[in-house]
Amino acid sequence: MQRILSTELAAHAGRTVTVAGWVHRRRLLKSVAFLILRDAAGLAQIVATSAEDRAVLEALTEESVVEVTGTVTANAAAPAGVELTAPTVRVLSAVAVPLPVELHRPAPTGTLPTQLDHAALALRHPARAAALRVAAAATAGFRAALEARRFVEIHTPKIVASATESGANVFRLDYFGRPGYLAQSPQFYKQLMVGVFERVYEVGPVFRAEPHDTARHLAQYTSLDAELGFITDHRDVMAVLRDVVATMVDTVADRTGTPGPGVPEQIPAVHFSEALRIAGAPADEPDLAPAHERALGEWAAREHGSDFVFVTGYPMRKRPFYTHPQPSDPTWSNSFDLLFRGVELVTGGQRLHRYDDYTAALAARGEAVTAYEGYLDGFRYGMPAHGGFAIGLERFVARLLGAANVREVTAFPRDLHRLTP
Amino acid sequence: MQRILSTELAAHAGRTVTVAGWVHRRRLLKSVAFLILRDAAGLAQIVATSAEDRAVLEALTEESVVEVTGTVTANAAAPAGVELTAPTVRVLSAVAVPLPVELHRPAPTGTLPTQLDHAALALRHPARAAALRVAAAATAGFRAALEARRFVEIHTPKIVASATESGANVFRLDYFGRPGYLAQSPQFYKQLMVGVFERVYEVGPVFRAEPHDTARHLAQYTSLDAELGFITDHRDVMAVLRDVVATMVDTVADRTGTPGPGVPEQIPAVHFSEALRIAGAPADEPDLAPAHERALGEWAAREHGSDFVFVTGYPMRKRPFYTHPQPSDPTWSNSFDLLFRGVELVTGGQRLHRYDDYTAALAARGEAVTAYEGYLDGFRYGMPAHGGFAIGLERFVARLLGAANVREVTAFPRDLHRLTP
Repeated sequence: MQRILSTELAAHAGRTVTVAGWVHRRRLLKSVAFLILRDAAGLAQIVATSAEDRAVLEALTEESVVEVTGTVTANAAAPAGVELTAPTVRVLSAVAVPLPVELHRPAPTGTLPTQLDHAALALRHPARAAALRVAAAATAGFRAALEARRFVEIHTPKIVASATESGANVFRLDYFGRPGYLAQSPQFYKQLMVGVFERVYEVGPVFRAEPHDTARHLAQYTSLDAELGFITDHRDVMAVLRDVVATMVDTVADRTGTPGPGVPEQIPAVHFSEALRIAGAPADEPDLAPAHERALGEWAAREHGSDFVFVTGYPMRKRPFYTHPQPSDPTWSNSFDLLFRGVELVTGGQRLHRYDDYTAALAARGEAVTAYEGYLDGFRYGMPAHGGFAIGLERFVARLLGAANVREVTAFPRDLHRLTP
Repeated sequence: MQRILSTELAAHAGRTVTVAGWVHRRRLLKSVAFLILRDAAGLAQIVATSAEDRAVLEALTEESVVEVTGTVTANAAAPAGVELTAPTVRVLSAVAVPLPVELHRPAPTGTLPTQLDHAALALRHPARAAALRVAAAATAGFRAALEARRFVEIHTPKIVASATESGANVFRLDYFGRPGYLAQSPQFYKQLMVGVFERVYEVGPVFRAEPHDTARHLAQYTSLDAELGFITDHRDVMAVLRDVVATMVDTVADRTGTPGPGVPEQIPAVHFSEALRIAGAPADEPDLAPAHERALGEWAAREHGSDFVFVTGYPMRKRPFYTHPQPSDPTWSNSFDLLFRGVELVTGGQRLHRYDDYTAALAARGEAVTAYEGYLDGFRYGMPAHGGFAIGLERFVARLLGAANVREVTAFPRDLHRLTP
């Protein structure tokens, strides 16, 4: 018999159907026994009243894969108002070992390390799986917003010849006998591809050999990158980012039912120098501390009713060498951060687009051009003014869901201590 | 003035507009001078008749980025029937060096190595850019087909603790002082995620330390992976793959105008033993040689009018250890290749889904379970019968376009000799 999903049961009331999935939970009461079956769509309740049916349910083990044929029967107390009665159970794959993580409680049992050690099991918990569905929806929203604005998807090298953004925190590998490095971002490649398509995006892994063991650092994460040419300055990039974030939040809500924050048509924006004043920080602070970002989040909520706020113009000395300075005062930059509820969510800005500006910027920082030669070559051949941004997918999802640790919303996280599973 | 795209010119006949892009080509005739401007959408013809306007065009260099304001004037001989007259040209980014690759000829000039050395420039050639648009469209089609069939997108680790599919051809790296490896495929992770979502897909880079310097091997390529659970056998996977390939071909045609092959509702399928007979190969051949695949392609075209043919049941000893044997005769496997015009395009099959079957399969091959422990752990906790497939994006595009070398359709290829740009 053709299998149906748990969510389709209600449409089959009175009929005999087959469902299949995992033994999520059993409840063996005195007069009746329940099997809660979990499939990709949700949960189904199966009821055994006869001694024979009950014995079958008693013999099952949690997480075994089973196929159940039974009659769809109305029961107001069951999920979606129906349950399966008079079941015939066929075990497709039996679990013969104790479960290191239990899945039928509101949160997975066991410490986070135990959950991560047994990720293939722990990710089946509905809350954990839901977070990954949010990630998939956010990614789909990112793509949809950009495709609608004539951005072209690209795939760029993850093995590079030199550390790109900074020499530190880079994984080194043996590339056919030569040193190679894992790319910390597709930054340079997406810029060069502006010369081909004007507007490009990439969804892909980036790698940071983060020596910090914190709740928000991963050695590999998924970067949602976009870059666009023929801009006037960073404000054109911010306008695209606003629309992208709005579509991401909407797509998450549509697909998963996770309510998201409202994204204002015009997200409030403050210059870095003004941001310091609002946050009550000294005027010569080079960067925003977490406390400052929180204060700015509160200010945006209070003054603008917004969960989001842009901070623009970060000091040039705190931004990477490819950052475009603010034309009116090159102490500042045409860059921005987007804060969400007082925490940095996205970084972006306008980039340099002329070869001579790159060589001057590197010289001013005492860096050799040679390390960037293959990349800079492209800027000799005509590049328009351009800029872009990068969203860390796992951080975005963690902040949207209020997860304390980014590992809770990552399928198989990689960090300082973890290389398996 | 708001910039419009080259393709929008015809809709603005008689008006003054601004376009922007790259100096694709200049033609300086006796009585008139033409500037062909290239933007993301196409080409625009700009005409200078006065001595002053002509001098401006003469001073330009190819690939410089310019903004041109002029009057849209009908001219049946111009692209889309319009050209821009009485132009005012503003140079946004001037090219001051000779171009190592010329872009205005039917194919980029220079050898393939020269083109690859200057990829940021060479990829601007309309033919090269078009191939990357085909790749983007094929990827969009892959996703759309799977999303419509309730597959969930996942992102999995690219750094792993042990070589997955075979010990050879793997890149080794220093992972915080321990040995780590670049993933050769998301195989194990996508299988484990079937336990979470039943149906999953991933678009991401995979890495092979290929010691072969051929026209079809890359050290990094983009793998389009799918895996689905609750199947009867590999034929359920083949049915999904057929629909995925059809959607990919259709999306490429819709978005890029590249005509694709027809994909039959039912792609002909032959068992490996029968395939040998058709190809005229000895019955004890362990694998299909390229000549055999070509013969099968001709057979499928002749007998079934199909560009595609499935070969099923490859000998178990030629398939990876996770392959599910053919139940009626375990010499053969529940696996398949999809051939396109006589060349292998996709590999897939049903996988083992019970822990004990994995340990037995590894023992039979004399391999230790320990190397796969983190991965096999998940199979202790209940997995349904499942299978999947992987499509190499660059190979798919190369075969669709008839490109001789996969590097022609890859943005910044990585191979035995090439780690830059």
